[in-house]
Amino acid sequence: MVKKGVQHKILVIHGPNLNMLGMREPDIYGHQTLEEINTALRAKTEQLGLELETFQSNHEGAIVDRIQQAHESFDGIIINPAAYTHTSVAIRDALSILNIPVIEIHLSNINKREPFRQTSLIADIATARISGFGPHGYLLALDGLAQMLSGN
Amino acid sequence: MVKKGVQHKILVIHGPNLNMLGMREPDIYGHQTLEEINTALRAKTEQLGLELETFQSNHEGAIVDRIQQAHESFDGIIINPAAYTHTSVAIRDALSILNIPVIEIHLSNINKREPFRQTSLIADIATARISGFGPHGYLLALDGLAQMLSGN
Amino acid sequence: MVKKGVQHKILVIHGPNLNMLGMREPDIYGHQTLEEINTALRAKTEQLGLELETFQSNHEGAIVDRIQQAHESFDGIIINPAAYTHTSVAIRDALSILNIPVIEIHLSNINKREPFRQTSLIADIATARISGFGPHGYLLALDGLAQMLSGN
Amino acid sequence: MVKKGVQHKILVIHGPNLNMLGMREPDIYGHQTLEEINTALRAKTEQLGLELETFQSNHEGAIVDRIQQAHESFDGIIINPAAYTHTSVAIRDALSILNIPVIEIHLSNINKREPFRQTSLIADIATARISGFGPHGYLLALDGLAQMLSGN
Amino acid sequence: MVKKGVQHKILVIHGPNLNMLGMREPDIYGHQTLEEINTALRAKTEQLGLELETFQSNHEGAIVDRIQQAHESFDGIIINPAAYTHTSVAIRDALSILNIPVIEIHLSNINKREPFRQTSLIADIATARISGFGPHGYLLALDGLAQMLSGN
Amino acid sequence: MVKKGVQHKILVIHGPNLNMLGMREPDIYGHQTLEEINTALRAKTEQLGLELETFQSNHEGAIVDRIQQAHESFDGIIINPAAYTHTSVAIRDALSILNIPVIEIHLSNINKREPFRQTSLIADIATARISGFGPHGYLLALDGLAQMLSGN
Amino acid sequence: MVKKGVQHKILVIHGPNLNMLGMREPDIYGHQTLEEINTALRAKTEQLGLELETFQSNHEGAIVDRIQQAHESFDGIIINPAAYTHTSVAIRDALSILNIPVIEIHLSNINKREPFRQTSLIADIATARISGFGPHGYLLALDGLAQMLSGN
Amino acid sequence: MVKKGVQHKILVIHGPNLNMLGMREPDIYGHQTLEEINTALRAKTEQLGLELETFQSNHEGAIVDRIQQAHESFDGIIINPAAYTHTSVAIRDALSILNIPVIEIHLSNINKREPFRQTSLIADIATARISGFGPHGYLLALDGLAQMLSGN
Amino acid sequence: MVKKGVQHKILVIHGPNLNMLGMREPDIYGHQTLEEINTALRAKTEQLGLELETFQSNHEGAIVDRIQQAHESFDGIIINPAAYTHTSVAIRDALSILNIPVIEIHLSNINKREPFRQTSLIADIATARISGFGPHGYLLALDGLAQMLSGN
Amino acid sequence: MVKKGVQHKILVIHGPNLNMLGMREPDIYGHQTLEEINTALRAKTEQLGLELETFQSNHEGAIVDRIQQAHESFDGIIINPAAYTHTSVAIRDALSILNIPVIEIHLSNINKREPFRQTSLIADIATARISGFGPHGYLLALDGLAQMLSGN
Amino acid sequence: MVKKGVQHKILVIHGPNLNMLGMREPDIYGHQTLEEINTALRAKTEQLGLELETFQSNHEGAIVDRIQQAHESFDGIIINPAAYTHTSVAIRDALSILNIPVIEIHLSNINKREPFRQTSLIADIATARISGFGPHGYLLALDGLAQMLSGN
Amino acid sequence: MVKKGVQHKILVIHGPNLNMLGMREPDIYGHQTLEEINTALRAKTEQLGLELETFQSNHEGAIVDRIQQAHESFDGIIINPAAYTHTSVAIRDALSILNIPVIEIHLSNINKREPFRQTSLIADIATARISGFGPHGYLLALDGLAQMLSGN
Repeated sequence: MVKKGVQHKILVIHGPNLNMLGMREPDIYGHQTLEEINTALRAKTEQLGLELETFQSNHEGAIVDRIQQAHESFDGIIINPAAYTHTSVAIRDALSILNIPVIEIHLSNINKREPFRQTSLIADIATARISGFGPHGYLLALDGLAQMLSGN
Repeated sequence: MVKKGVQHKILVIHGPNLNMLGMREPDIYGHQTLEEINTALRAKTEQLGLELETFQSNHEGAIVDRIQQAHESFDGIIINPAAYTHTSVAIRDALSILNIPVIEIHLSNINKREPFRQTSLIADIATARISGFGPHGYLLALDGLAQMLSGN
Repeated sequence: MVKKGVQHKILVIHGPNLNMLGMREPDIYGHQTLEEINTALRAKTEQLGLELETFQSNHEGAIVDRIQQAHESFDGIIINPAAYTHTSVAIRDALSILNIPVIEIHLSNINKREPFRQTSLIADIATARISGFGPHGYLLALDGLAQMLSGN
Repeated sequence: MVKKGVQHKILVIHGPNLNMLGMREPDIYGHQTLEEINTALRAKTEQLGLELETFQSNHEGAIVDRIQQAHESFDGIIINPAAYTHTSVAIRDALSILNIPVIEIHLSNINKREPFRQTSLIADIATARISGFGPHGYLLALDGLAQMLSGN
Repeated sequence: MVKKGVQHKILVIHGPNLNMLGMREPDIYGHQTLEEINTALRAKTEQLGLELETFQSNHEGAIVDRIQQAHESFDGIIINPAAYTHTSVAIRDALSILNIPVIEIHLSNINKREPFRQTSLIADIATARISGFGPHGYLLALDGLAQMLSGN
Repeated sequence: MVKKGVQHKILVIHGPNLNMLGMREPDIYGHQTLEEINTALRAKTEQLGLELETFQSNHEGAIVDRIQQAHESFDGIIINPAAYTHTSVAIRDALSILNIPVIEIHLSNINKREPFRQTSLIADIATARISGFGPHGYLLALDGLAQMLSGN
Repeated sequence: MVKKGVQHKILVIHGPNLNMLGMREPDIYGHQTLEEINTALRAKTEQLGLELETFQSNHEGAIVDRIQQAHESFDGIIINPAAYTHTSVAIRDALSILNIPVIEIHLSNINKREPFRQTSLIADIATARISGFGPHGYLLALDGLAQMLSGN
Repeated sequence: MVKKGVQHKILVIHGPNLNMLGMREPDIYGHQTLEEINTALRAKTEQLGLELETFQSNHEGAIVDRIQQAHESFDGIIINPAAYTHTSVAIRDALSILNIPVIEIHLSNINKREPFRQTSLIADIATARISGFGPHGYLLALDGLAQMLSGN
Repeated sequence: MVKKGVQHKILVIHGPNLNMLGMREPDIYGHQTLEEINTALRAKTEQLGLELETFQSNHEGAIVDRIQQAHESFDGIIINPAAYTHTSVAIRDALSILNIPVIEIHLSNINKREPFRQTSLIADIATARISGFGPHGYLLALDGLAQMLSGN
Repeated sequence: MVKKGVQHKILVIHGPNLNMLGMREPDIYGHQTLEEINTALRAKTEQLGLELETFQSNHEGAIVDRIQQAHESFDGIIINPAAYTHTSVAIRDALSILNIPVIEIHLSNINKREPFRQTSLIADIATARISGFGPHGYLLALDGLAQMLSGN
Repeated sequence: MVKKGVQHKILVIHGPNLNMLGMREPDIYGHQTLEEINTALRAKTEQLGLELETFQSNHEGAIVDRIQQAHESFDGIIINPAAYTHTSVAIRDALSILNIPVIEIHLSNINKREPFRQTSLIADIATARISGFGPHGYLLALDGLAQMLSGN
Repeated sequence: MVKKGVQHKILVIHGPNLNMLGMREPDIYGHQTLEEINTALRAKTEQLGLELETFQSNHEGAIVDRIQQAHESFDGIIINPAAYTHTSVAIRDALSILNIPVIEIHLSNINKREPFRQTSLIADIATARISGFGPHGYLLALDGLAQMLSGN
């Protein structure tokens, strides 16, 4: 399933309200904006020899649309489903169609938060999960995904 | 509520990810595409002397919009709410406004699947339910709905 | 498992209290008697080129006995387990021995009724399910089963 | 529904294992046999000017059959469903078809016993309930039923 | 514990809102007033050769006080705890101190009503229970209690 | 956080299916249309010396977008989340970013309705809540919000 | 049920511990005393052309007594059941007897508090509910109740 | 209770669908038929100096009847209640009447199977339990029962 | 909050049915009467240089009233809420208003008793808890409270 | 079981992490070290005429070993099971073998803490329980235990 | 996996507190000591031509260590996990590494005991289970295991 | 709390059964041994300019001991609690005493496994969490921890 010896293409999806990063409850989410995170991701992907696309939406349906378009054109997905982690079967189903690694990431350690944030509809179809490292977690996810794709 | 002696108009709604049919987990959903299903539906409705419209969207809100527009212009709805079966109170509420029969359909027998697919927010407002017959289930739904509308 | 090119034999099983149809809570179950339903089933099976046997009992054990006798002599079962839907592991186990399609049917939409009717011990071993179409549901079940057996 | 000015006919149904009364856990159920209870019931019904039939079976299906035969020939039912209180939807459904008062009776106070004996599938369709009076409870049930039928 | 050969004394306790009988939701509770019920009880106790006292209060504490005063001066209690059935551990504890039979009675069949009325804090310490016979249930309770006290 | 001495700006958000008001289950929601409600709101805000904007959408994502745009330009929000009350963590998260009072309003008393309508994902982040007053509830919400903003 | 064209009479009931307002956890309940609230209520009722009575008690039974006395002499009730919101079936039953609108009010938004405060035994029999507006909520309740009684 | 120095008599009861052994899901239940198991049991009982009777039925009531007849004529029961393990209070009650050891046996380890097979209504009244040894488990049960009866 | 160098005043509250001590289920509660316990408490408080008041009531409201009167005149409370432990939010709320240590005491170890006695509405607002020491527990509570008030 | 007239021997067991007292979350557990607590215990036991041994371990198995060795050589145990309160059936079983009083003690009021600390596997086999008094609680436990052993 | 034609080696593991057998609650566990059980096991293994090692510990970690050392040197394990049945995922995981039959045994029928003893973390990875036969159950387990290993 | 400008010291703890890596269920845990993982960790820590210690034990108590010794001598902990993730409050408490970042790591995505592995007693006290990356996850954890300690 994984193309060896070619440049792998990665899709990073940011879920609802993540466009407000830096403004929203900074003691939980930090002061970095989404644009700054995307810039750091772009630097790291170049360094790892990967291609990157990023996408943010507050619309569940728009995220489903984007994941479907990734079909057969991407080698891995990193997704921070944010609020939709807990409520979207549609995003889960869309991710299940793709036959590529899916990394679920959260900025904060969601296990420290409200009970309804303890259940994830994505968790058991994700390949791997990272939480609590703040924006740096995206870079760890990229690193881990690259490692998976390189097959080592 | 049901117009006798006139040609009944049926709306068929396909929920999220059903546009991927044929690509997605074929051992669960089969190899037929959504377009092929719609073609079969059109053939059957003509044969039954009914009018048909079909609609697919990955957006919960768009499905709500479409159901609202059906108000007073359709005589029955066949809906495969897919992932929104389990999470959308909004679609449930939209269907409740219409005073016409609603047939809930699922390609697979959802009772064989994950626990979160066992609850349906549509089930108790649907007039009737069909699951597990694959694409042929749509034709059974049409047949059953026609029977209801004919009042026999 | 399914014999192609030969006349398929179907067993229809009616569970407890269905012999009272027409007498029992007619606003839920309609005015048709069980004999009238069986007559309609016989007409439809002839039209579809199938063989039919029907069976009704109020005894869980008698239904188990009948299913066991169907072993290797029938190609499909349509069962309305009625009250035993919710309480009989024995009928479930008997159906599991047979290696043929099982269609579960209910006259009413049981999802609109008491909580204890929401759980079905048959649902996850059934091939397909139909509910809410009244007696016409039996004919849809026959149609769907014939389609499965024809392998199309 | 209730025939005034004629002799009312009462059916008393004893559920599974009640034929063992006097032998079974006497500190819970007392030393009186079922035959002695039926004799006392017959004496009391004569005194009240009622007709009586009694029936005991260990078979759920046989109890369902008997209730169905009562249709339109009895004016009231007194039932001690014993073990089937907690497991039989079929007996519940059979009782629901009859349009006559149903008195549910238990010899012991089942609320003092195992948790699975706390749920009754009959309780919410019974007209009235009596428990904990031992065999005398049957006579109280007859008295109460006669009062209902006399319409006072 | 029970005094044989002397006139037994019975305390009947009516819980909160029962003083409103005849005014409150008459389709559930009937048109008889509490005074009329007490009159019938007095007639029946005389006929049975018993002594009777009745008590009504809307105050949980007052009911507890009254039960405590019954200590060693009464031979049996008939209590309709009404709303306190479901919420009062204090009344339960007070009844537990007395070493005499306790009959719990309800006018309606509480198993047909709201879920919170399905749990009774009195049920498992009561000797026997009666529900659904309307005011006549009090007379059945008296009859059953007299039978217990007579030791037959 | 609240600007004193200036004209406060209020955003009123109507959730999914509220555009159908007057057409949908009028015994629950009344006969008034959404436009009539908005007109009444405009009259009342003028009278209270406030500024008003109203917004309706069937799309969860569109409501999230609108709330985000309110950031730093409004002084209070009145929201009837309708179906999204029970399913949208995304709207909850969007409202949490804003540092202004949020009034949750429902036309009907949702506590009288289906169990799944008893849980609100908005309730514990709302400042105050109103339900069951029909369209007049919006005016009470405005009044209460004005009182809060005036700091009295 | 509602008397038009005459002066409506309103009963306001304050539950347990509300007599301590101003002293008790002021960051939750504010600094206003109960007497000050009653004064504001009296001013507002005069302005609305209504009659008012207020009542406070720490005793569940006393509140039940007071509600019963309101039978046929009041046109509406505003009740802050405080702690009894969560534990009193007796108060619920007393309110159910009256055939007049009942407004349930809480000073704080109880949905922000302990889990046991999330259940209300009054909520589903109340006509409407208000919470989180502090003492001003009583005035909104009066306004809403007047609007209901005026029939507009 | 146990007769020492005389030949003990053992009743072995096989529950529903066990007559299909060898045909039904052989990877769970093995290829041995019930007749072969009974033959092995007979050989072992002779070797142990015990008397044996075996019984199979798909009918809950028939199993109850058979257990009742065992009263005072058998010294121990080995029962594989199969499907009725999870649903029959009637069989539980019948076994409770007998004052002799009851060994509950299952061919497969039911703890590896569906959740509804995890609860046994027999487990807490059985003297001992064996599961997962296939047909050999019956012989272990006989051995263990003989040991109990010999009093060593 | 705690007055150092002055004589501390302690209120001991005994909940419902504790006035029956010595009469009620002596194997659980012992043979000592409440008066004897109060005498021992008085002796111990004198020895510790504290002032003491004791109060008993079966009325929830009366206990609330008494706690409210303790406001600003007592330095610590020892309460055995008995049955109200499990049902009274009103007593909990009254105790919360006071800003002084609250010791919850039970004569028996309530964790050995019925499930409904396992939940305490007082436990998480109490400063400390003692159970299972019988009447001596009151003296330990006094000792512990004195230690707290002395600030060592 | 309890030796009268001889010097009683007490074993005090400190569970996991209690060796870190004074270092660990001092706002919950205070600043006193375990050694200081043991010193105070020794002083108090001498004063009470008792013998004392203390034991601390982070190992569940070591605590079980120690309790077993106490068999027949100690007259009472005071145990602060700390984390093992909530997870150790093995310690519970070891304590059950001993036929002597067991006092369960906690420094903090565990009912104010995380939900998983609300369940105790020791609570229902302990003779008595103390929590929330800090280190002083050990001295109260000693006092209470001495009282029990003296038989007064 | 199973070595045929060679002498099979069996490891018997006794969990916590089993070293106290004969001393601990003899009405539940009998009077036989662990040493006597091991002697009986040794006699039986010789008779069956098997090799035996036995191990007892109160330490979860020591049991895990011992199971790991069994890796590739034993052909079957008989384990009585005692208290760790209900709490040890570590022992479960250690047993899962071994690719040999695991027999879970309990002396008493744990289904007759406390609720927390009803869940077993070992049950669904065990090959077979035996309970309620007392010490004789170990011999039955050996017999059953020998049968499995002989492949008959 | 974090020492800047000095070489940070990291403790890596491997829980029970991880010493069996490479042998145990390789399709879940991979073929790498623990020694190989430790070697990779050492290489990476040198490269990051950190100091490293590793520790493995099957004993809950030994892990608690090791964590306590880390007090004030380490700057961060990476822990794979394995089976103790789900059962050890003691390890949780030990980690809570340390005032340094704790990274919880799992080789597999535990959300894809058995239900009892879905709860973690460590999750809500961990600073960050990683799962599903296999042995590479340890290196990501080191990277993320280094990033935290560097304060960027």
